[in-house]
Amino acid sequence: MRYELYYWPGIQGRGEYVRLALEDSGADYADVARSDRGMAAMMKMMAARSGTPPFAPPFLKAGQLVIGHTANILLYLGSRHGLAPKSEAGRLSVHQLQLTVTDLVLEIHDTHHPLGPSLYYEDQRGPAKRRTEEFWKERVPKYLGYFELLVKNNGGSYLTGRRVTYADLSLFQIVEGLRYAFPNRMKAFEREIPGLVDLHDRVAIRPNIKAYLLSDRRIAFNEDGIFRHYKALDI
Amino acid sequence: MRYELYYWPGIQGRGEYVRLALEDSGADYADVARSDRGMAAMMKMMAARSGTPPFAPPFLKAGQLVIGHTANILLYLGSRHGLAPKSEAGRLSVHQLQLTVTDLVLEIHDTHHPLGPSLYYEDQRGPAKRRTEEFWKERVPKYLGYFELLVKNNGGSYLTGRRVTYADLSLFQIVEGLRYAFPNRMKAFEREIPGLVDLHDRVAIRPNIKAYLLSDRRIAFNEDGIFRHYKALDI
Repeated sequence: MRYELYYWPGIQGRGEYVRLALEDSGADYADVARSDRGMAAMMKMMAARSGTPPFAPPFLKAGQLVIGHTANILLYLGSRHGLAPKSEAGRLSVHQLQLTVTDLVLEIHDTHHPLGPSLYYEDQRGPAKRRTEEFWKERVPKYLGYFELLVKNNGGSYLTGRRVTYADLSLFQIVEGLRYAFPNRMKAFEREIPGLVDLHDRVAIRPNIKAYLLSDRRIAFNEDGIFRHYKALDI
Repeated sequence: MRYELYYWPGIQGRGEYVRLALEDSGADYADVARSDRGMAAMMKMMAARSGTPPFAPPFLKAGQLVIGHTANILLYLGSRHGLAPKSEAGRLSVHQLQLTVTDLVLEIHDTHHPLGPSLYYEDQRGPAKRRTEEFWKERVPKYLGYFELLVKNNGGSYLTGRRVTYADLSLFQIVEGLRYAFPNRMKAFEREIPGLVDLHDRVAIRPNIKAYLLSDRRIAFNEDGIFRHYKALDI
């Protein structure tokens, strides 16, 4: 089956966590909205007047199923493609981690958009500075410290043990993104999270991930996405 | 089996969505952390040095399983207690809705905490005012308009059709909470969402919910939770 991923073209955004899972598992998929025609198809599906169209991209078409929300898509893909256990307990456990990543991603977005997603960054520079301070002082140590502890608790390779899951792929993206958005702050912080840096490096050399990162399917980080590099926010 | 729910005592918070599902289905459960001893047990479980302890409350103990994150707990409970379909497609669809509710709940919290969860509201009154304006102008119409459309699309009773799901119980709580936090704004807005108001009323008279709301198990809204009533934010 060929999956169809629907997500905004031009940014990594929330769609990237799905792309990493599809790429790592070598699944056959089309990144539909990266053509004009695909973009029109995406908007049409979101405007469906029956059933439960997704609130927002990303969503995945898998045969007749249309699955919305990043973590939900990963829940669906994970155990089918060896990126999560097949047991219910194992699936719930990895999904729990992904939902914590989801919260973190929203907080990362809020560093440059503390007054809400509909205003420009340029209209909220002052509050963005304050939120970013708070984020690095309180939230990054709490979130990344938690994930670091899990890696240590479970043998030092991945979050849940010796096998990679989609939550590990997502943490790779978190480390990549924080390095892009906050190079100075992240450089100083990385000494606190040696286990996560190792995990990041281990994911980066997985053959399918490595090939993906070098391909033009990987969209570059930019200032329309979740991870944005604004000098004023990176001391 | 007697479930054990672990959540901060004294607030409804994210735990309330789980409580509503447990109460509606008549499940046997203990709200553990509402005693001092239970609170100590909760902190101990979160500090576990093996496996994947949850990042934050709420979490649910179901036999040997410990399930963290509100939406994940509801995913587990839903199809076991008649609050979600049993088919994979149905479960994913209701979970998708719950994840959209999760995003909305975070945005509601940000109205009074735009500069981050670790600072007091009193230290961010100005930004809170701006974020709240934005929230009511752009985000409430987008989110609640979406859910309103689903109710209409699917026959006028509940989000996915004629059978109630845990996502409907959560939307009941959203309507209750917005009425508490923003009575003036919500009163003016409710004319836009007659379907959701009906859904709210239909949930409120379900016998188990009605009994729960009248019991002392239901914690009152207060200014430590997600929905906070600050006059300055409600024009």
